[in-house]
Amino acid sequence: MLEVIVQVFTDHGYDASSLGMIADRLGLSKSAVYHHFASKSEMLEIALQRVLGELERVFDEAEAQSDDAVLQIRSIVRNAVLVACAQQSYLTLLLRLHGNSDVELRALERRRALTARLREMFVQARADGALRDDLDPGLAARFTFGLVNSLVEWYRPDGPDTPEELADAVLGYVRTGLRVNEVRDFR
Amino acid sequence: MLEVIVQVFTDHGYDASSLGMIADRLGLSKSAVYHHFASKSEMLEIALQRVLGELERVFDEAEAQSDDAVLQIRSIVRNAVLVACAQQSYLTLLLRLHGNSDVELRALERRRALTARLREMFVQARADGALRDDLDPGLAARFTFGLVNSLVEWYRPDGPDTPEELADAVLGYVRTGLRVNEVRDFR
Repeated sequence: MLEVIVQVFTDHGYDASSLGMIADRLGLSKSAVYHHFASKSEMLEIALQRVLGELERVFDEAEAQSDDAVLQIRSIVRNAVLVACAQQSYLTLLLRLHGNSDVELRALERRRALTARLREMFVQARADGALRDDLDPGLAARFTFGLVNSLVEWYRPDGPDTPEELADAVLGYVRTGLRVNEVRDFR
Repeated sequence: MLEVIVQVFTDHGYDASSLGMIADRLGLSKSAVYHHFASKSEMLEIALQRVLGELERVFDEAEAQSDDAVLQIRSIVRNAVLVACAQQSYLTLLLRLHGNSDVELRALERRRALTARLREMFVQARADGALRDDLDPGLAARFTFGLVNSLVEWYRPDGPDTPEELADAVLGYVRTGLRVNEVRDFR
């Protein structure tokens, strides 16, 4: 039910989605929908909690598994790709928030907190000598999330690549890029 | 004027933006707005043409400047970052399209065509031995655009990094990633 609602939100934008549209798509009356959710805002809050809770869990697990910042980052990138594939419409909803309500502002704050946690890991990785020192850790965190998040635009569950294969590909790109320049230097 | 309209579209979503909202934000009457644009759809079309035209020009120039696929890719990444910074709200609009009208579908088709052109350059770069061979050129193109496009989420014209500095940082990430793993291998 929530999946269908989130699909309406991402098809039309949250602001333009009416309870009538949602009830139609669910094949229910508006009052039947109200039986499950008090308001459109409550639907949004529950949907955002679902993806933000998953992403926070990915960070918590990475920190519980290892003290090594590089291993933590690797674990987060891999598992964030899996979350992006498994919760594609929920993550799309989060990425397209406009910040027009308290629910949206709180979600954006939690999202910023995750970027700050990833940034701290990049700071630590750099201190460990494991991160190139010409890239700001804050930019590294934003670029890395940008790369992972862009998956929601084109990932298809029936596509040629499995989530695990995509996680490997993203991890390869994050670790060593396309290596275009390095190979050129040896030619 | 278009800039303000695009800001309304990105603040509320295109579907939820009414002519009344647009007129209010411009401090004009609805009929004065109609003097400039026949419809909301025309505003959208002109705004999308602006950013898509710029991105197509970036590709055309890269192809005119060099036959070397690696140099073409570098030129495109650098200039696409500059377009993302200069036309942040227009690119945001393009990235958030839902495909609910012919104007939107045509814009999405042009966007896909650009990704296909970048993919072909990665195919050529791989044939030249200048691209790692364990990454699919289609994924490389999507990841690279994903990285560039994510800038619109947080870039601020008054922020600490200039567009040129961000272009250098993105290019560094695309070329050699964070090098996390490579450095680890030498420890």
